[in-house]
Amino acid sequence: MARWEPGARERLVLAAVDLFSDQGYDETTVTQIAERAGVTKSTFFRHFPDKRELLVAGQETLSRLLADGITEAPADSTPLAAVAAGLERASAEMGPVNRELGPRLRVAVAASAELQERDALKSVGMAAAMTDALVARGVADAPARLASEMGVLAFKRGFERWSGGQVAEDDGLAEHALAALAELRAAAATLD
Amino acid sequence: MARWEPGARERLVLAAVDLFSDQGYDETTVTQIAERAGVTKSTFFRHFPDKRELLVAGQETLSRLLADGITEAPADSTPLAAVAAGLERASAEMGPVNRELGPRLRVAVAASAELQERDALKSVGMAAAMTDALVARGVADAPARLASEMGVLAFKRGFERWSGGQVAEDDGLAEHALAALAELRAAAATLD
Repeated sequence: MARWEPGARERLVLAAVDLFSDQGYDETTVTQIAERAGVTKSTFFRHFPDKRELLVAGQETLSRLLADGITEAPADSTPLAAVAAGLERASAEMGPVNRELGPRLRVAVAASAELQERDALKSVGMAAAMTDALVARGVADAPARLASEMGVLAFKRGFERWSGGQVAEDDGLAEHALAALAELRAAAATLD
Repeated sequence: MARWEPGARERLVLAAVDLFSDQGYDETTVTQIAERAGVTKSTFFRHFPDKRELLVAGQETLSRLLADGITEAPADSTPLAAVAAGLERASAEMGPVNRELGPRLRVAVAASAELQERDALKSVGMAAAMTDALVARGVADAPARLASEMGVLAFKRGFERWSGGQVAEDDGLAEHALAALAELRAAAATLD
């Protein structure tokens, strides 16, 4: 199997996350990120307007994919089946870069209050995008919000397992996200 | 009934939230906040180390109250009954200041990316505090997370209704938060 070769954009993200975890988000400059990625500063700016956008870009894509999967699920899907379709859609776009990024991003986030806020905003953005997509399908507000939170928890938990090195190399993210969703669905029956 | 008279700390918070919504979080200085609250800058610094802490202080208290209520719920409580106890405990501490603050804070948050991040972090912090308290009671991880997310949604939705001016003047927050939790509980049965 050919070794995966990241392009400039991916190298910039990986370099940034490494620097954020090593020396902090605030202390990391665009120059340092470009240097570590082995590209010029102009290459950085062809891909991202600033270091903040480097993180936000991925988040917006992720929220959009989750919502698209929900929107395109068969008309007779239950709310959780639509959420599962969203997880599958987003998971299909997550490749080796994302998997490699996972543990490094966790280190970086643990060390930075600013990245914790970004990470929190990401969860809220994912939930909001899924809720909007469910409501557009005719799901009422309370179940839409609840199903979305379950989707966020499932995505995060599935991603953590998938990128945590504890599972088979050729596993896709989708199976772990869907397994986490099934766990939450079972858990919902034990709350009361 | 005596008109409610906010103390310096409450006046500072109200003044800050008004300024944040009028002119933005970044543009608001400690001097302006103190001036609007009718106190000196030293009074500000007796209550808060900086303008950021002014927002964080309330969040930490809220998370602690939610967790305390869960911890102190009767030993045989179900996970959702423990979450309900957390909502009641936190609601009991929310008075006229919080109710008055609600709509203004929503305006301020809508206008500021930084406040949106803080608000998102607050939700994540509330959920984490509740999850820890549930896990300490012996609830498994997946149901603990799910019940906590339901608690966060219920608190936010209940607070929004309570502070949104649509409900009776002498209503407490607790009844609206618990009603929202009951709605989510009913919604959980309709997801699949």
